[in-house]
Amino acid sequence: MNVLEHIGKEAKKAAPVLGTLSTEKKNQVLLKAASNLTAGMDRILAANEKDMEQGRAKGMKAGLLDRLKLTPERIEGMAEGLRQIAGLADPIGQVIEEHRPPNGLRIRQVRVPLGVVGIIYEARPNVTADAFGLCFKTGNVAILRGGSDAIHSNHTIVEILQETLAAQGCPVSAISLLEDTSRETAAAFMRLNSYIDVLIPRGSAGLIAAVVKNSTVPVIETGSGNCHIYVDEAADLSMAVEIVYNAKTQRIGVCNACESLVVHEKVRNAFLPLLAERLSEKQVELRGDARAREAVPMKEASQEDWGMEYLDYILSVKVVDSLSEAVSHINQYNTGHSEAIITEDKAHAEQFLREVDAAAVYVNASTRFTDGFEFGFGAEIGISTQKLHARGPMGLLALTSYKYKIYGKGQVRK
Amino acid sequence: MNVLEHIGKEAKKAAPVLGTLSTEKKNQVLLKAASNLTAGMDRILAANEKDMEQGRAKGMKAGLLDRLKLTPERIEGMAEGLRQIAGLADPIGQVIEEHRPPNGLRIRQVRVPLGVVGIIYEARPNVTADAFGLCFKTGNVAILRGGSDAIHSNHTIVEILQETLAAQGCPVSAISLLEDTSRETAAAFMRLNSYIDVLIPRGSAGLIAAVVKNSTVPVIETGSGNCHIYVDEAADLSMAVEIVYNAKTQRIGVCNACESLVVHEKVRNAFLPLLAERLSEKQVELRGDARAREAVPMKEASQEDWGMEYLDYILSVKVVDSLSEAVSHINQYNTGHSEAIITEDKAHAEQFLREVDAAAVYVNASTRFTDGFEFGFGAEIGISTQKLHARGPMGLLALTSYKYKIYGKGQVRK
Repeated sequence: MNVLEHIGKEAKKAAPVLGTLSTEKKNQVLLKAASNLTAGMDRILAANEKDMEQGRAKGMKAGLLDRLKLTPERIEGMAEGLRQIAGLADPIGQVIEEHRPPNGLRIRQVRVPLGVVGIIYEARPNVTADAFGLCFKTGNVAILRGGSDAIHSNHTIVEILQETLAAQGCPVSAISLLEDTSRETAAAFMRLNSYIDVLIPRGSAGLIAAVVKNSTVPVIETGSGNCHIYVDEAADLSMAVEIVYNAKTQRIGVCNACESLVVHEKVRNAFLPLLAERLSEKQVELRGDARAREAVPMKEASQEDWGMEYLDYILSVKVVDSLSEAVSHINQYNTGHSEAIITEDKAHAEQFLREVDAAAVYVNASTRFTDGFEFGFGAEIGISTQKLHARGPMGLLALTSYKYKIYGKGQVRK
Repeated sequence: MNVLEHIGKEAKKAAPVLGTLSTEKKNQVLLKAASNLTAGMDRILAANEKDMEQGRAKGMKAGLLDRLKLTPERIEGMAEGLRQIAGLADPIGQVIEEHRPPNGLRIRQVRVPLGVVGIIYEARPNVTADAFGLCFKTGNVAILRGGSDAIHSNHTIVEILQETLAAQGCPVSAISLLEDTSRETAAAFMRLNSYIDVLIPRGSAGLIAAVVKNSTVPVIETGSGNCHIYVDEAADLSMAVEIVYNAKTQRIGVCNACESLVVHEKVRNAFLPLLAERLSEKQVELRGDARAREAVPMKEASQEDWGMEYLDYILSVKVVDSLSEAVSHINQYNTGHSEAIITEDKAHAEQFLREVDAAAVYVNASTRFTDGFEFGFGAEIGISTQKLHARGPMGLLALTSYKYKIYGKGQVRK
C-alpha cells in the first residue's frame, strides 16, 4: 500500500470519530491548538526560515516571499483564527427539517460533516492552520496538500496540531499533510474517490483549473474573479467614483477587486473624467473601447482585455447603450464572482440583480465586500464560483452535508 | 463551430430567460406540454416502434426492450408526471435568508436555477419528459443525452416539447437533445464547462462511473446502492423478517433494494431459519459467512459478495458480535445509499443512525422507502449518493442554487 492510500485509509477511519465529537470537545481542542501554535512559535519560525532560504536561493519574487514568510504576528494571527472558530456556532447535528409523509415514517434531515476534505493550496502556510480549524469544527477530517515551497513550515504546523490532537485523545489523522509534493502524487490525490469526499483548491487560477480538469473527486471551485461595476445612466456619479476607486485600488491582488468598468453612454462624458482623475492618484491604467477613449484619453482595450483578471492597477472600460447591453456583456465575460450596479433607479437595480449571473450581485456598494467575514460568517474556507453545493463566501455550513434519519414502526413498501 | 458548441451556446442564452419566467407561465407551459404529449401519442408510438424494431434486430434482451417500450398508458404517465410537477410549489425566487452585517449592507440570499443542466441517461424514454419537467419548473435549461437505443422516441418527445415552447413564446432551446449519441460526443459533452453548470447521470453503475471519471463539469453522482439491513440482538424478529422480505423482493432491480443482511450472533439461530423460509417463497439465494451457514444451509459468501449490488434474488448474510462491528462492516462496503437497523433498543437505534455513513439511515423500516415520492417531494430527478450539494432523493430543490443580492448605500471597504 502506498503512502497516499495509507493516509486515505486512516482519514476515512478517523471520520466517524470526528463526526461524533461534542461541540465542547472540539472547541477545547481548537483552543489548545491555538495556544500550542503560540508556544511552538520558535519551531515554526525555524522551519519557515528553511523555506525562506530555499525560496531566496531559487530566486522567488518578493511578493511570493512575502506570502511565504511567517512572523510572530502572523503566527499569533493563525492562533487567533482558531480561537475565533472555537467561538462560532457548531452546525453539526442541527435538525434542518422534519416531516411525516403519508407512509407514516418520521423523516428527519440532520446536518453532518462532509467526511474527508482534501485541500490543495499554494505558498501561504497560514492556510494550514485555518483549514484545520474550519474542518475540525465541522467534524471533518482534513488532508492537506500544500505547495513544495512551504513544506517545512506546513510540516511543523501540522506536527504541532497532531501533537495537540494526541494529547487531547483525538485521532491524530484528523489532519494530515502530503509530504510528497510531486505532481504525480497530486494527480493521484485528486482521484482518491474511495477516501475523499470533496476537494477544495485554493490559490491561483491555474491551480484551480488543473484541479477541476484532473479531479474525479467532487470539487468546490473557488476563486478567480473578473468583477465588473456598471455605472448606470441613473447613477449618483460621485458615489460611483468612490465605489470604483475602492473596488479597484483598496487591494489589487484579490479576487473581489474590480477589473472592468461598464458605463452607460449617457453618463460617460460626465463620469469618466471624474473617475480618471481619482484613479490617477494610484496611477491606474485605463484600457477602453472607442467611446470610452473619446471621453478620456486612454489605451485601447483589446478583445482579451474583457476577459482579464488583471490583479493589478489596470481597469478596462466599456461603454454601452442600455442596461440590457451591460448585463449581456457582464454575463459573457464574468467569472460568476461579484458584480455591481451603481444606480438610483430601483427598477434598474432589480433588473441587474435578477439578470446578472454571479454569486454576489450588488447595488451601490463595492465588490470588495464578497468575503466570509464581511458577510458575517465569522470565517471562510474560500469563495465558490460554481453553483453546486455552495456559492459565494463559504463559511462553516459549506463544509457540511446532511443525512436523513428515518424512524419507522415496521413499515414496508407496497 | 460544432453542433455541441452551438447547442451549448443556445442553452446558455436561454438560461436567463428561463430563470425569470413567472411560476404561472411555467405551469401553463407544463400543462400544455402534457396535453401535447397525449395529443401526439401516435407520433411518439410510431417513433418508439422504430427503436423497438432496431432493438429486436440487434437482439436486445427482454428486460431492456421492456424499458424501451412506450404504450398509450406510459405516454399518459409521462403527461401525468408533467401535470404533477406543475402542481408543485416553485422554489425559484424564494428568500432563503436575509441579514444585515455591521457594514450596513442588506444581504439577501435568494434561490435561483442552476442554469444549464446536462442529463446523461440510458434506454428509458420516459426520462426525457420527466427531466424536462423538473428542469423547466426550476427555471433550468436541459440538455439531454439519451441512449442511442431510444433515439427516435427521444427525438419525437423533444420535438413535441419544443413545439409547445415555441407556441408558448418560450425559448425552444430550453430543451435540447444530442442527436449524435457517439462516445466521442458524450465525452466532449462532459467537458463543456463554459456552457453547462451541472451534469446528472442516470442509469447503470457503469454509466455513472464513466461520467464521474471523465467529466470536468460538476457532477451529481446518483444511483448505485449496496444497501444493508442489520438485525440487532434486540430486534423484533417477525418485524425483521417482513422488512427484509420487502426490501429484498418487492422490486429487485432498484437501487434501494436490500443486497446484504447483517445479523447479531445472539439472534442468528432464531432469526435465520425464519427468514430463509419466508425468502424461499421467492427463491432467494442466500450467501453467508461460516456462522450464517451454521444456522441455515446456504452457499458460502466470497469476499466479493460483500461489495455486490446484485439487483437479483440474491442476499449476502454476515454474522457479527456487536453493533459496532455491524457499523464498521456497513461503512466499509456500503455505497452511501440506504441502510437500516431493526431493533427495539432506542440507544442502539440512535448509535446506528449516527454512525452509519449513508444518505438515508432507517430504524425499523424497509430501505425501499428512499424515493422522492415516498419522501413527499412530489418528484425526483435521482438519488444522490455523494455528499456535495444534495444527498438522498433529489426533488426540485436539488435543481436550484442561490445568489446573494446585496443592497448598499455607497458602502466601500475599509
